[in-house]
Amino acid sequence: MPYSHPVDVRYLEVDAQGVVFNMWYLAYLDDAMTGFLAAGGLGYGEMTAAGFDVQLVHTELDWRGAAGFGDTLAVDVRTESIGRTSLTLGFTVRRDEQVLATARTVYVCIGTDGSGSRPVPAALRTALEGSLT
Amino acid sequence: MPYSHPVDVRYLEVDAQGVVFNMWYLAYLDDAMTGFLAAGGLGYGEMTAAGFDVQLVHTELDWRGAAGFGDTLAVDVRTESIGRTSLTLGFTVRRDEQVLATARTVYVCIGTDGSGSRPVPAALRTALEGSLT
Amino acid sequence: MPYSHPVDVRYLEVDAQGVVFNMWYLAYLDDAMTGFLAAGGLGYGEMTAAGFDVQLVHTELDWRGAAGFGDTLAVDVRTESIGRTSLTLGFTVRRDEQVLATARTVYVCIGTDGSGSRPVPAALRTALEGSLT
Amino acid sequence: MPYSHPVDVRYLEVDAQGVVFNMWYLAYLDDAMTGFLAAGGLGYGEMTAAGFDVQLVHTELDWRGAAGFGDTLAVDVRTESIGRTSLTLGFTVRRDEQVLATARTVYVCIGTDGSGSRPVPAALRTALEGSLT
Repeated sequence: MPYSHPVDVRYLEVDAQGVVFNMWYLAYLDDAMTGFLAAGGLGYGEMTAAGFDVQLVHTELDWRGAAGFGDTLAVDVRTESIGRTSLTLGFTVRRDEQVLATARTVYVCIGTDGSGSRPVPAALRTALEGSLT
Repeated sequence: MPYSHPVDVRYLEVDAQGVVFNMWYLAYLDDAMTGFLAAGGLGYGEMTAAGFDVQLVHTELDWRGAAGFGDTLAVDVRTESIGRTSLTLGFTVRRDEQVLATARTVYVCIGTDGSGSRPVPAALRTALEGSLT
Repeated sequence: MPYSHPVDVRYLEVDAQGVVFNMWYLAYLDDAMTGFLAAGGLGYGEMTAAGFDVQLVHTELDWRGAAGFGDTLAVDVRTESIGRTSLTLGFTVRRDEQVLATARTVYVCIGTDGSGSRPVPAALRTALEGSLT
Repeated sequence: MPYSHPVDVRYLEVDAQGVVFNMWYLAYLDDAMTGFLAAGGLGYGEMTAAGFDVQLVHTELDWRGAAGFGDTLAVDVRTESIGRTSLTLGFTVRRDEQVLATARTVYVCIGTDGSGSRPVPAALRTALEGSLT
């Protein structure tokens, strides 16, 4: 069963069209990614304390519906693939069973010391593998 | 020559990693899209007054670099294709000549009366065609 | 006992100083105000369906501490006063028992039909009075 | 003549009421503060390079009008007072001659080394004094 992250839409995220403005979905994905890793045993604080972090290098989103103020959404997260220095996550943003958006994000693993990309550490790999599809 | 939209990075857009958080790029693209259409002769107010609007249905971004506080960026915009009810724009986010990100967005043309998708109106087509690549 | 609204700090809300950027506190207050009214029996949807809304005309905030990524905050809300067309709320933003900020906001009650300010409706007064200090 | 900072309202800043959501005014004030100091000869990068920064400890805003998408606003900034470790700025947010909001912010001068508050450095005092009212 995939990890699912709850999101309460904020009033300020709704634009003059009456729907959540597109950029906030990237906020939802980021929140969901952090929750997903924590659920897999790797808190964000532990990750940076261990000297590494993840950096977004690619994202793609497809919208099929719109969210409004007062909606509680669910963001399902799953690991799509793990490379040597990168990882790919898949997301589904739902309101109950209605899919509003799907997304894919690719992150590169980096050192927090500015040394650039580095192999995916074991602790991160373990956190990701639990939901590998 | 493509349309280029200037962006001054805000302090609040920079995160704890010291770089612009990913979601703000969608804000930059949206600003640039509006400026691009206005430069093509179609102001946003005129568009909605004429009874139509555009809705984002797909976006993809690839990052190659990072922006920081104090940076002035340029967002180049061009029309990639015009369909019956949809249109595709291409974007390059630069700091001077350094490309920080490239992006593609697909919009569907909708009526402001909630009637759903509709053919791309002539005024919008004209605004887009000037930069068709 | 005052109404208390939970807030999970988002990564993107933390700035280059490593603390939540000031403007996000206004997002927290807005979320807390909506939850406060709903707890008092008046959902936001019911309010606008009944033809009225509230508009912020004054806010003041004092910070005594800083919030960071991963913090879960509590925003306590109480009614400070109810006028003929306006209302004043008081807020305390805490991390556990540590007060990070206090705030006061004044709203004017308006018609959703653009008719301007109007007397505080009974349903809103009732929702507010439960916590009148 | 006071320093005036230009702001182009973003589409995403406008909420379902059709007006700029209140928190974005704090973004405008922050942008204007940075521009104001730079105009006084102290760029933000120079300030932090010299080992100090400013931290917001109080803000108050009063709204008299609303801004909408497409508006270009002016944020006038002036120094209201300079204390030993703190400084107070006054702001007026206008659309042409119409005042939409007034604000006052108080900052404490801090070391970037985490040492806490410190006396207002000469370079900052000089940047502020040019517009002391």
